[in-house]
Amino acid sequence: MEKKVGEQYLFDFYGELLTDKQKQILEYYYDDDYSLAEIAEVMAVTRQGIFDVIKRSKAMMEAYEEKLGLIAKFLKSQILLEEIEKELLDCVDREKDEQLKSELMLVIEKLKNVSEEN
Amino acid sequence: MEKKVGEQYLFDFYGELLTDKQKQILEYYYDDDYSLAEIAEVMAVTRQGIFDVIKRSKAMMEAYEEKLGLIAKFLKSQILLEEIEKELLDCVDREKDEQLKSELMLVIEKLKNVSEEN
Repeated sequence: MEKKVGEQYLFDFYGELLTDKQKQILEYYYDDDYSLAEIAEVMAVTRQGIFDVIKRSKAMMEAYEEKLGLIAKFLKSQILLEEIEKELLDCVDREKDEQLKSELMLVIEKLKNVSEEN
Repeated sequence: MEKKVGEQYLFDFYGELLTDKQKQILEYYYDDDYSLAEIAEVMAVTRQGIFDVIKRSKAMMEAYEEKLGLIAKFLKSQILLEEIEKELLDCVDREKDEQLKSELMLVIEKLKNVSEEN
């Protein structure tokens, strides 16, 4: 089973919507990077059982993303926020007024909190 | 049945996770502001049936918010973005350099797109 780019996002955004058992298995898989065999041992289930849970969980989370599009929105926001940050940094570089310069730098710091909030 | 502040948010954020029938009824209720009796007539169901669907749908959406917290995050981001916008407008007001002034105004416009994206 291959971990594709973006699967970690699925788990980050929609993990809370899984059952406790699914969540536990996916935590081992994504956050702790356990192999299927290792998870099977810890959970005392067959490797095939773990495979099935992960497959079903992924399908569930993909269905949620299809409906809510949280990851797509998040990525779009991040790109916009990065552009804004870059443009503000560019303004800071050319700002002659020291007071305005430091205020703009504080704004840039605040902007990072927006990124993290998303 | 009273519509509480925030219920519209619930529907905006989680409406896509409802069944087609639930969504249809809540659209009449929240977006078109139909009464329960009016929805009952349009859908050819009893008023009590409509009441039950709305009640169940609200409980489902509240459970999603409890798990995902999208509305809480959204409101927090909006407050941050408004603060940032205010601070940037204040910088624009005091900016002497016309080129920087217009660039900062463009940044403020971009910031509005982030708000809308959330």
